[in-house]
Amino acid sequence: MSLTEPTPVDLDRPAAGVPHPLDAATQLTARPDGSYEGHTSTAYWNFTGPFGGVTAACLMRALLDHPRRQGSPVSLTVNYCAPVAEGAFRITPRLARTNRSTQHWSLEITQDGEPPSTTATAVFGARPETFAHAPATPPALPPRESLVPFPSHLAGSAWLRNYDFRFAQLQPLGRVPRVEPLPAAQELWIADAPPRPLDFVALAALADTFFARIFVVRGALVPAGTVSMSIFFHATEADLTRQGSEPLRARADSRVFDRGFHDQSAELWGADGTLFVSTHQIVYYRDPPAA
Amino acid sequence: MSLTEPTPVDLDRPAAGVPHPLDAATQLTARPDGSYEGHTSTAYWNFTGPFGGVTAACLMRALLDHPRRQGSPVSLTVNYCAPVAEGAFRITPRLARTNRSTQHWSLEITQDGEPPSTTATAVFGARPETFAHAPATPPALPPRESLVPFPSHLAGSAWLRNYDFRFAQLQPLGRVPRVEPLPAAQELWIADAPPRPLDFVALAALADTFFARIFVVRGALVPAGTVSMSIFFHATEADLTRQGSEPLRARADSRVFDRGFHDQSAELWGADGTLFVSTHQIVYYRDPPAA
Repeated sequence: MSLTEPTPVDLDRPAAGVPHPLDAATQLTARPDGSYEGHTSTAYWNFTGPFGGVTAACLMRALLDHPRRQGSPVSLTVNYCAPVAEGAFRITPRLARTNRSTQHWSLEITQDGEPPSTTATAVFGARPETFAHAPATPPALPPRESLVPFPSHLAGSAWLRNYDFRFAQLQPLGRVPRVEPLPAAQELWIADAPPRPLDFVALAALADTFFARIFVVRGALVPAGTVSMSIFFHATEADLTRQGSEPLRARADSRVFDRGFHDQSAELWGADGTLFVSTHQIVYYRDPPAA
Repeated sequence: MSLTEPTPVDLDRPAAGVPHPLDAATQLTARPDGSYEGHTSTAYWNFTGPFGGVTAACLMRALLDHPRRQGSPVSLTVNYCAPVAEGAFRITPRLARTNRSTQHWSLEITQDGEPPSTTATAVFGARPETFAHAPATPPALPPRESLVPFPSHLAGSAWLRNYDFRFAQLQPLGRVPRVEPLPAAQELWIADAPPRPLDFVALAALADTFFARIFVVRGALVPAGTVSMSIFFHATEADLTRQGSEPLRARADSRVFDRGFHDQSAELWGADGTLFVSTHQIVYYRDPPAA
């Protein structure tokens, strides 16, 4: 998520029969030159532009729709160079190389002949049966029903209202940063709101739903935004079908905050304890040192 | 690191006055068209091509040398599409966008008009004084002198001989994979061999020196190779100057191995307990399931 100053946006909840907001927001039109045209969505608006996750989801959609795409998603790296402006945007995927087992893509998002607002690379691959092993374990969360939903409807950013967050540890968010840092680590339940069958488009968006850790440790909003995010997809189509629209278990943490940037690593786990996504981002922030 | 089948390469150790092997291997010639020409190095040869870390180091060198580069390294993502062939290669950096606080680059490595062997994106930025906080702690390693150096001179891959590895937990490496997985996590001391003052070029290479976790958990070499690696640079010039050529503390671990790919996260720490680099990669492997 990204922030400079709040400019609240109203969100019309979808009526029955209306496509899920994520499907509406990631709708793309293929163009004769091999690019895809999309349009920003008020439903996923953040403070100065679209929620970074919906931008990642649009890139994933373009690749999944691409006639030359082979295999399933292995990784997606998105670099947020500048906010996408409200309106139409162009996604230009370029197939860099296909080898025996993986396919490499480079992508850009452009608008009105401006330099790219977004650059990205992606890897797709075959997922054959192999030796499998999971040293990592899913977060041990309290039952989801026992946790209070995050009051997304009170938040300034529209995109939050498309997710149901249930934090095991909900940190206070004040008007001024704390003197003592709060814990960076959080565990939570996350689900699309309204519920939606999980796919790689949704996973790409979900990977960026973790609040910037600078907000969490400072207990306040400061100017911050994702600069670069890498998503590793461990889930296969079969995993997603099994998951359906069940809520995901998730965790996020950071290693270091220093000189305007902090790292952030997060995980999204399926209901059956399968790791679907591990994701890592470097976040820009501005927060003057204590005098 | 990447592997298919061993083809040992001889390495001439540098004599006094000769440039450090890393400086020789990352030497680039600027071309009038804005690209850089380099040449693969036998000293950093791996099994089927150059060690991925030296490729990352060459990309970093090209950006650091670039007249339009602003700020210091924040992130570098390298996608290994195919092995770089022995001989000359071309690095083409393209400045995607410069904004107030960050600069975004896209790069490719090509040879003889072939599709790119490597694609990459990088972010540079200003590193002003801000609120700083380090939730992560460096590995508590035994004194380096008390640990046996990894016998790089016995290994098939030349690049290993340019590093001094001292593992706190050195896993056995046999001819056939273990039935029971060994721990994926390792902590170690790493230093350039011969010693070399630390810079961002060396850090980019060091980020890929962690053995593929599939070798570690299986206790054997299987076909494997890094597909995509993201490096987050937390160190500033001042940190590197303070570090000089001191050994680094390091750790690596994985979350999941499944259907031909596993993740891998690692950290490089300075002598004074500052996190210099966090890095994450997705690794391709082939390892048939137990019958």
